[in-house]
Amino acid sequence: MNSIRIFAPATVANVACGFDILGFALCSPGDEISIEFNNLHKIILHDNTPYHLPLEAEKNVTAVALQSMLDALKTNQGFTITFLQKIMPGSGVGSSAASSAAGVFGANELLDKPFTRNNLVQFAMQGERIASGSAHADNVAPALLGGFTLVRSYTPLDVISLPSPTIYATVVHPQIEVRTSDSRKILRHEIPIKKAVEQWGNVAGLVTGLFTNDYALIGRSLQDVIVEPVRALLIPEFYTIKQAALDAGALGCSISGSGPSLFALSETEKTAQKVAAAMQQGFTNIGIDNHVFVSPINKEGTRVV
Amino acid sequence: MNSIRIFAPATVANVACGFDILGFALCSPGDEISIEFNNLHKIILHDNTPYHLPLEAEKNVTAVALQSMLDALKTNQGFTITFLQKIMPGSGVGSSAASSAAGVFGANELLDKPFTRNNLVQFAMQGERIASGSAHADNVAPALLGGFTLVRSYTPLDVISLPSPTIYATVVHPQIEVRTSDSRKILRHEIPIKKAVEQWGNVAGLVTGLFTNDYALIGRSLQDVIVEPVRALLIPEFYTIKQAALDAGALGCSISGSGPSLFALSETEKTAQKVAAAMQQGFTNIGIDNHVFVSPINKEGTRVV
Repeated sequence: MNSIRIFAPATVANVACGFDILGFALCSPGDEISIEFNNLHKIILHDNTPYHLPLEAEKNVTAVALQSMLDALKTNQGFTITFLQKIMPGSGVGSSAASSAAGVFGANELLDKPFTRNNLVQFAMQGERIASGSAHADNVAPALLGGFTLVRSYTPLDVISLPSPTIYATVVHPQIEVRTSDSRKILRHEIPIKKAVEQWGNVAGLVTGLFTNDYALIGRSLQDVIVEPVRALLIPEFYTIKQAALDAGALGCSISGSGPSLFALSETEKTAQKVAAAMQQGFTNIGIDNHVFVSPINKEGTRVV
Repeated sequence: MNSIRIFAPATVANVACGFDILGFALCSPGDEISIEFNNLHKIILHDNTPYHLPLEAEKNVTAVALQSMLDALKTNQGFTITFLQKIMPGSGVGSSAASSAAGVFGANELLDKPFTRNNLVQFAMQGERIASGSAHADNVAPALLGGFTLVRSYTPLDVISLPSPTIYATVVHPQIEVRTSDSRKILRHEIPIKKAVEQWGNVAGLVTGLFTNDYALIGRSLQDVIVEPVRALLIPEFYTIKQAALDAGALGCSISGSGPSLFALSETEKTAQKVAAAMQQGFTNIGIDNHVFVSPINKEGTRVV
């Protein structure tokens, strides 16, 4: 096996109450790359996507992630990677995480799996450092592992797969720019302990709901009283569109990652489609172009195509 | 059935990371009361314990909790309650919660169960208001329901039973006074968001560990980076004694409720006994009288004796 194609899925991080710790994977959209060995002892990149990805290895998230893995293996094996399909960068559904996951997963396959999927998270995180300035794992973990994931701790890194009930995500990406770095800058460094207690009550409720398939509990717990109220300021008519999603039957709705996309979760695909139409209409009403995805939870994560 | 005896267990609230939301019940110690109907249309109290409990209905936690339940039922049925056995007040293992739980549970039994156990939490909380100034539910919920419980939300009240793996609690009660109200006053109103994220990562980890019987994960998650560092100041040699518990094999150790008791959790009863000896020695070394309990998790909660 010298050349393989890899698909790495889009992901939703934060998941309302789970700021910086929870995420889940979508079946589509996703990144697709081909990856093969080369004898040049370096990472060579080709871009067949419309996004003009940086092709210098030290500026490309896929290459940075892969290089950290090769460094850990103390190998100078070269790889040639071609980007075939790409989640639109800056959409808030883990575009850089998918790129990072695809590279390390593909190389790990070609190298006969020196690492488990869970082990790969630490390397894929390094791509996130280039993309957003912080090596966060809440997108790369679900991108690699699939389903819902928990990043319990960074020191040491502790990534845990949570159960994923049959549930459907609606993601709407409005065509506005929200930079991850800005989106972090506006957060308060200090928060009221009362709000934090509400948040961790909801985190506990959401995890319990995932384990017990309790959709009502999942819905009650999909609340973010800390981050959403601040980041909502960056998304025009956020609360109107969120309410439209809930009125259409969504269990809950919040900001995907650091935005600008919104996500909602619904019990059935039919409801998720209704929710999609309602959210899309909300943005269209205020003249903001947008596109929408409906997807079940991707339980597999990154995979060989 | 005109007169019954009720046992309501001691409880550990907070459970490290789960400040104000998590709790679990012990098999012993506990409160024991007898309760029977009377025809006097009021709550009559008798105290057979050594604790000189207040016997005016409006100052007694059991009576206040029971009265709130009778008000909800719009009944003026009278009850006579005799306190037979009492957890030492102020020990930090839910003494007032057990008293509140016992009264409402007993009356509910005599009245042919107009309420579920879960419904009784809202009334038992009213006893806590008298005891500590706030109607918290994180002790009364496990006292009534048994096992590990989650108070996801107060508005509306949402109490959820979590699974309880076979696990043993060690509780050491040092003979020092820490008033719940003082213990709350020293907490900071604002906390760093970075610490809050660590905390809710651990909450999610602990809940996951309870569902998956993953003792190692339970141990890793039993960390409190928000409240314990502040309240530890009220307990002499807290960190020495915590370390002794961990060295003796405990999965984790923290402050029970608002203190002064410490709790530890261990995978086996044998380890829990070793942990008990180590913690007890820690307090004895600094000349603080103490007593210690070792108990499995009480899965039943409040019960008819």
